Amino acid sequence: MNPVDQSKFPTVVIIGGGFGGLQVAKQLAEKPVEVILIDKHNYHTFQPLLYQVATGSLEAESIAFSLRKNFEGQKNLRFRNTEVTRIDAERNTVVTTIGEIPYDYLVIATGSTTNFFGNKDIEHYAMPMKSIPEALNLRYMVLQNLEEAILKPAKEERAPYLSFVLVGAGPTGVELAGALAELRNHVLNKDYPELMKEEMKVYLVDFLPKVLGPFSDEGSKAAEDYLHKMGVELLLNVKVESYDGHEIKFEGGKSILTKNVIWSAGVMGVVPDGVSKDAIERGNRIKVDTICRLVGSPNIFAIGDVAAMITEETPKGHPGVAQVAIQMGETTGKNIYKLIKGEPAVPFKYNDKGSLATIGRNKAIADIGKLKFQGFFAWLIWMFVHLISLMGGRNRVIVFINWVASYVTYNGGSRLIIRNFKREELVQKDEQVSKPD
Amino acid sequence: MNPVDQSKFPTVVIIGGGFGGLQVAKQLAEKPVEVILIDKHNYHTFQPLLYQVATGSLEAESIAFSLRKNFEGQKNLRFRNTEVTRIDAERNTVVTTIGEIPYDYLVIATGSTTNFFGNKDIEHYAMPMKSIPEALNLRYMVLQNLEEAILKPAKEERAPYLSFVLVGAGPTGVELAGALAELRNHVLNKDYPELMKEEMKVYLVDFLPKVLGPFSDEGSKAAEDYLHKMGVELLLNVKVESYDGHEIKFEGGKSILTKNVIWSAGVMGVVPDGVSKDAIERGNRIKVDTICRLVGSPNIFAIGDVAAMITEETPKGHPGVAQVAIQMGETTGKNIYKLIKGEPAVPFKYNDKGSLATIGRNKAIADIGKLKFQGFFAWLIWMFVHLISLMGGRNRVIVFINWVASYVTYNGGSRLIIRNFKREELVQKDEQVSKPD
Repeated sequence: MNPVDQSKFPTVVIIGGGFGGLQVAKQLAEKPVEVILIDKHNYHTFQPLLYQVATGSLEAESIAFSLRKNFEGQKNLRFRNTEVTRIDAERNTVVTTIGEIPYDYLVIATGSTTNFFGNKDIEHYAMPMKSIPEALNLRYMVLQNLEEAILKPAKEERAPYLSFVLVGAGPTGVELAGALAELRNHVLNKDYPELMKEEMKVYLVDFLPKVLGPFSDEGSKAAEDYLHKMGVELLLNVKVESYDGHEIKFEGGKSILTKNVIWSAGVMGVVPDGVSKDAIERGNRIKVDTICRLVGSPNIFAIGDVAAMITEETPKGHPGVAQVAIQMGETTGKNIYKLIKGEPAVPFKYNDKGSLATIGRNKAIADIGKLKFQGFFAWLIWMFVHLISLMGGRNRVIVFINWVASYVTYNGGSRLIIRNFKREELVQKDEQVSKPD
Repeated sequence: MNPVDQSKFPTVVIIGGGFGGLQVAKQLAEKPVEVILIDKHNYHTFQPLLYQVATGSLEAESIAFSLRKNFEGQKNLRFRNTEVTRIDAERNTVVTTIGEIPYDYLVIATGSTTNFFGNKDIEHYAMPMKSIPEALNLRYMVLQNLEEAILKPAKEERAPYLSFVLVGAGPTGVELAGALAELRNHVLNKDYPELMKEEMKVYLVDFLPKVLGPFSDEGSKAAEDYLHKMGVELLLNVKVESYDGHEIKFEGGKSILTKNVIWSAGVMGVVPDGVSKDAIERGNRIKVDTICRLVGSPNIFAIGDVAAMITEETPKGHPGVAQVAIQMGETTGKNIYKLIKGEPAVPFKYNDKGSLATIGRNKAIADIGKLKFQGFFAWLIWMFVHLISLMGGRNRVIVFINWVASYVTYNGGSRLIIRNFKREELVQKDEQVSKPD
């Protein structure tokens, strides 16, 4: 069965409605091509603000946008809410759970997922935060553990429920550490009068000697200062050995009793079946040439987090950030149309617009080329950039109101447990289905 | 184990943080009593707008409010996020999943749930809509069925996925019918270009000869007119016989092939175990005297949907609406304090403020005493009353923005499938837990 009626125009199939996939589709609007966008979710996720969903500061719907709604105006695009089973490159066909979809050009924009580096225990017990369902699971777990802590009469019994260990001090870990520290500093006493705010501990762990590895030393240093002042305990140069759901152990013998381990220590590409093993680079990424084309293929492209464009300038490929995906998507969309017209494709050139991370109220780090800011001004830049990057005017207004409310009241967010999180029933953490409580 | 340290003040335990329970707690603020509020959810649900969550017009968090946050200022209240297993009236104790909680006064404010009148098949296959998890399940099911419909090449195959049968033409059924009709009229063609809007059918079924039974005839008639103009098919004087997940059959032989049956044809009280069977009235409600006290008990009260105050004036008890719960809660909170002080309790007197229902853009019905409005002015009243009744300034602002956006664009709501709905894994529909997709 072919779940999409296809016209005689060349068909471009895009797998993934993230930052990269959206750009490819956008570039092909109004062009004489047929675009089919496939995603297992029916929405685009604005990943940079996922951590605010996890801490309950923003609603999931504020940082997600319906893919159908986004493409209402684009007549040459069809959306299919399905999962890709396999790519059959010989037959130029994508096999999905709803049938086979033939393509003339294929763009793999599947992004990345959490890398637990093969440690099954950590994968089972630690919480990842790469998707909206995962961020919601994390939110519910944190809130349930606060409820649980209230019921333990002894301080030692409460401690594991009130200890939050974040592994990986990249932007996700740093931003989440800041948000949890603010929850402790401003909300805990108000909402949970039974708990002492000193009992809640936030640890940020990394095997590197600094936080925000890819940032400037100046930025990293400022972030460490901010985190320190907010009461986050930094465990740098520290490697995680194991976690059994109750105790996290580090190399060298130290350990912490905790029910809350959040893992943002690594990512790996999500490569669909059917891509040749030879084409896979470090980090489970697909090796591409300078026009983002799968090495050896005439018509398959990979962009964003799942692509590894190894050149002299980028010996490890590009960083896994939204800007790379957006720019690769733009170039690839344009290139596909050039190839269709018989014109030569243009090599991808990354324009690094800088890095931003926020640690909390009035505190952010901005490395923009040679300009380095920290503090209030960087925080304003951070807010501005994230607001304008969000999809949908309604989302921008609602996120803005939430941020203003949080700023004024020191008590933003709704912190509702809509679905109970139950670890024992969790196998793959990205998704949840309907089941009794 | 006693999960709450109790002081020497009299303890008032309230089961349920709905409209009624909140009022009891509020009346006892600053009084020399200990209040313990128990709810299985950590939030209050503004039920009158649940149907907008079901159709994706509003986010769940906009109509829910954290119970902890709500009572931040009330020093004599403790919240426990747990379920009541049983009431042990002889020992003046509530048994919960987290331990036993002794009380001096107990208020049962557990509300109502969907009544399927013993039909197990309908209970299994039809969707209820009495809680936020249920409204979200309904949303995901509707959106998934639209996605499914796109994949069916034949019109007859698509029909069951595009037919929506709402059983029960009370305010919930009528408002949901209006919202689904608007989805069809304004959104379907934009978001699902593969589907013809004529293919989507909305049926509203009731065994009574009119919609909005308790409203004035004038209001009912206007509602029927509005529904008719919006393309809702009314099946009045029609009784449902069976539903097997694919075909709904009515008495007299008619039937409709449909994957979407939404059941709002009846409610019944949620009575905790331990309440004597003799105290149960029609509709599984607890028989109470004129001060909302369980007949025969000195210190147990029941209010709102779960209470049946049978008097000459109210031979069937009071209607199951928010105003009854709010007013009973107010009276009961005051009365408990009077009883503690040794003063006589004041009988409950219901002040009927009227009924409102909306059918869609510019269309609503208002019966306020002798005043009856229909149309735009009633719609403005409806919006105003619902906005000011919502809890939390942030929620009011966000709901208002959503409504303005919907009004201006004819295309409100985010319509995201955050969790896949899978009926086969559903047993009790109120809840979902973490499981792989």
